[in-house]
Amino acid sequence: MDDEYYMRMALAEAREAYDEGEIPVGAVIVSGDRVIAKAHNGTERLHDVTAHAEIMAITAAEEMLGAKYLTDCTLYVTLEPCVMCAGAIGWAQVSRLVYGAGDEKRGFEQVGRSMLHPKTEVCGGVLSDECSTLVKDFFKTRR
Amino acid sequence: MDDEYYMRMALAEAREAYDEGEIPVGAVIVSGDRVIAKAHNGTERLHDVTAHAEIMAITAAEEMLGAKYLTDCTLYVTLEPCVMCAGAIGWAQVSRLVYGAGDEKRGFEQVGRSMLHPKTEVCGGVLSDECSTLVKDFFKTRR
Repeated sequence: MDDEYYMRMALAEAREAYDEGEIPVGAVIVSGDRVIAKAHNGTERLHDVTAHAEIMAITAAEEMLGAKYLTDCTLYVTLEPCVMCAGAIGWAQVSRLVYGAGDEKRGFEQVGRSMLHPKTEVCGGVLSDECSTLVKDFFKTRR
Repeated sequence: MDDEYYMRMALAEAREAYDEGEIPVGAVIVSGDRVIAKAHNGTERLHDVTAHAEIMAITAAEEMLGAKYLTDCTLYVTLEPCVMCAGAIGWAQVSRLVYGAGDEKRGFEQVGRSMLHPKTEVCGGVLSDECSTLVKDFFKTRR
């Protein structure tokens, strides 16, 4: 069970978003070797700009654990989180953030990492091509 | 119905949070002269770091309108939004953001305004003393 394994699981979530007409982003939260939350973008379906994959995965994981902090968890997400989601990852003190494709336009790295917890380890670029191809394909069908 | 009127409504929400043992922050969203959402911080109660007043107010307002954008709305919040909430305010394209007390530690202004929509007007400091006193009183009772 390595990073690519869980990123493929996040990609499966992203494909569900794609099939629902949502920008295809998926997220998975893992504690030890246990998957405690999976979610995909639902902003159109729910008419809710906060319904990003990461926000819904964090809410689900915390509800599942009955705790506010995800200090022993890794969050996998197919696209570099936006500032909103990075802020949520910071509040939850997620210990490790692994993302797929970078997002030069709306990614949090444009603003810096100050909203993350100082101890959060960040690893970008896992299955980057597959993750970004899915997003590009989505926008092609929309044009 | 001026900014102080709606900020007092947000303060009433913040006091509800206080009474529930939550960091006392309240938010109100107004469209025209109609209040379409009110919410207060619920992170402890819900074990959910994303349950900030602003996030819950935005989710409620968008559900109420059945629309993803709050382009004709003003969001009132008693404390300067954090980066997560400012990101959500940006995605929702809120036309006007009015906050009470500044937050030098976790406020979004530390990072800048790039996560807001370029057209969003920002006004800070409305009933600032009352808003910050409530937060300070809360932390005094916790020591």
